[in-house]
Amino acid sequence: MWDVAEKLKALLVFAEHRYYGESLPFGAESFKDSKHLNFLTSEQALADFAELIRHLRRTVPGADSQPVIAIGGSYGGVLAAWFRMKYPHLVIGALAASAPIWQFEELIPCGMFMKIVTEDFRKSGKKCSESILRSWGAINRLSNTGSGLPWLTKAFHLCSSLNSEDVQRLKDWISETWVNLAMVNYPYPANFLKPLPSWPLKVVCQYLTNPFMSDSLLVQNIYQALNVYYNYSGQSRCNNISETTIGSLGSRVWGYQTCTEIILPFCTNGVDDMFEARAWDLDKYSDDCYKQWGVRPRPSWITTLYGGKDIRSHSNIIFSNGDLDPWSGGGVTEDLSDTLVAVNIPEGAHHLDLRSSTETDPPSLQLARSVEVRHMKQWISDFYGNYRRQP
Amino acid sequence: MWDVAEKLKALLVFAEHRYYGESLPFGAESFKDSKHLNFLTSEQALADFAELIRHLRRTVPGADSQPVIAIGGSYGGVLAAWFRMKYPHLVIGALAASAPIWQFEELIPCGMFMKIVTEDFRKSGKKCSESILRSWGAINRLSNTGSGLPWLTKAFHLCSSLNSEDVQRLKDWISETWVNLAMVNYPYPANFLKPLPSWPLKVVCQYLTNPFMSDSLLVQNIYQALNVYYNYSGQSRCNNISETTIGSLGSRVWGYQTCTEIILPFCTNGVDDMFEARAWDLDKYSDDCYKQWGVRPRPSWITTLYGGKDIRSHSNIIFSNGDLDPWSGGGVTEDLSDTLVAVNIPEGAHHLDLRSSTETDPPSLQLARSVEVRHMKQWISDFYGNYRRQP
Repeated sequence: MWDVAEKLKALLVFAEHRYYGESLPFGAESFKDSKHLNFLTSEQALADFAELIRHLRRTVPGADSQPVIAIGGSYGGVLAAWFRMKYPHLVIGALAASAPIWQFEELIPCGMFMKIVTEDFRKSGKKCSESILRSWGAINRLSNTGSGLPWLTKAFHLCSSLNSEDVQRLKDWISETWVNLAMVNYPYPANFLKPLPSWPLKVVCQYLTNPFMSDSLLVQNIYQALNVYYNYSGQSRCNNISETTIGSLGSRVWGYQTCTEIILPFCTNGVDDMFEARAWDLDKYSDDCYKQWGVRPRPSWITTLYGGKDIRSHSNIIFSNGDLDPWSGGGVTEDLSDTLVAVNIPEGAHHLDLRSSTETDPPSLQLARSVEVRHMKQWISDFYGNYRRQP
Repeated sequence: MWDVAEKLKALLVFAEHRYYGESLPFGAESFKDSKHLNFLTSEQALADFAELIRHLRRTVPGADSQPVIAIGGSYGGVLAAWFRMKYPHLVIGALAASAPIWQFEELIPCGMFMKIVTEDFRKSGKKCSESILRSWGAINRLSNTGSGLPWLTKAFHLCSSLNSEDVQRLKDWISETWVNLAMVNYPYPANFLKPLPSWPLKVVCQYLTNPFMSDSLLVQNIYQALNVYYNYSGQSRCNNISETTIGSLGSRVWGYQTCTEIILPFCTNGVDDMFEARAWDLDKYSDDCYKQWGVRPRPSWITTLYGGKDIRSHSNIIFSNGDLDPWSGGGVTEDLSDTLVAVNIPEGAHHLDLRSSTETDPPSLQLARSVEVRHMKQWISDFYGNYRRQP
């Protein structure tokens, strides 16, 4: 964005989503209960952006008549696309990077996400995904032996001792780590969720080349592989299975959003993917939400509000996706019209295109960025064309 | 709508706006205070319509794959247009009849509405609008004489005696009556706000042919003219200046909406119109709202949300307006694009086109209806074209 803003002589404005960072409508009370969290919706966030743009137009000298483009990645990309759909009078277009706008209801198969994660591991080393697939049974068998739990605690360098109820949480923590690694499988050393080497999955998979060793050796290899993610810097003393990312990126508030509007159905079957089979269970999901927040999810609302797959009456949105990104499964990866365009980056992980340019950017990434800038320039020139024609 | 539905083999569904009729979210408590009224917004109403359409698609046999068209008049027409703008995936188009979507902020001059009212009276009889313009001074002078107030009470057949504080209310009641008459100036006998003869303004203006008679005679003529509206049926025994329409059409709830979102700036100057000069005073308006409801209006929100005049990225909306309708001043009366079209009815008052066909419909009205149906047929055929092309 910094590069592009300079090219287009644009002002960059980063809008903070309400309930994140310092944008707390009720200060420290904001997360107290569902009454205080009630103003945390995507619609309210979009309305904030609308008010912000009008405010900037009024107060920034010269901004009044300037075109605005919405840009975002991940959930921010979803918001950028939705903002163009709902407020086309305020932004001339949107770049929605790695925006899984179709990861809702039954718009796509619930297994697609984990299938892409699995595919990433499969491509990153021989027998890598098979090793992970076999590791769940190894953990299960070990946890059922007499000395299994203390052994697993030590093998994974866990900060606190594993109880039998924790085994599922341990496996979830490992699964989420594989997911995160797939998301940040960037072609150069980066520090998005964690500091990592270039192509981190390749490094991870170097430890996972033989699925058919003993359970304990397989688990020790899994630990080595996880260590690429958790201890690349060499600073970590033990692993806490409640944490997968530093600072959690506001995961508490996100949890509330996933219990109200943002219902993303995920499932695995252990056949098309390398995970233990788990069906999508909305009733259980709903009960968990009710227990935690006192609210129940409305899984159909987002598609009712934003149109699901039927969005072709909108215009001027670029949907960029990296083929390696598990979120690309819920993204728009084919052009829907002349002005609703897909930009696919074969070597890309999660919103790689929004990261700063580097000397090692693959050609597909450079091409994607140039296509994005070309569209933005077109929107701007259309805007001035229309603008001048106005009475 | 009944005629057109039959022509197009359509199901007609009338959606009741929340907080009106029987759609009370908190039953009898719904109007208790601003906390209970907090869910009364146009966005919430549109969301209800979206949920309703999805519900009907799920539950009405065969409805799942059928196209839907939004139709409404007046505020309902505004909602129809806004619904197409915000939920284009749920309706293939909208007929927004007499929908003053631009009667907000400073999108149009605040005096336009009363200017059209005045023009209607001017065209309906010689010296008609001049008589009304002079009547305010007559009422003022009379109310300042010793026996003026009881005389005015008697002259206007008021149900309760006029106090000096009531004189402004009396004049407001008369003004509103002229406005209502302009809105329902239909070419045939009708009963929309009140039972009335055909071209009621012509009948009204028969009593208002001489502005330069004595104050008391002029006021007596004004009474006769008002009587066309209040006592065409001959049943009324006295006039209540708190009421201008039977049953008030939910005016209490509407009052709340006009104090939150629906801020319609009106003004008069007594030069371009036949009313006493009154500037638009947002501060006073806001204070009145705060006194009555404990809320203050947000006059910029509607244009922020729905785009003001910048709506050309939308499609498939017919804006129909009658030239006689004072609300046409805030309406869209010129085509904005090939698919955002204006249908103007020179002899039309407020949403005349939505009324049932009659044998005395003027040709301009018949033409307007046929243009509207032609557009709807085009939307339907486009829908099936796209629908079949879908993978």
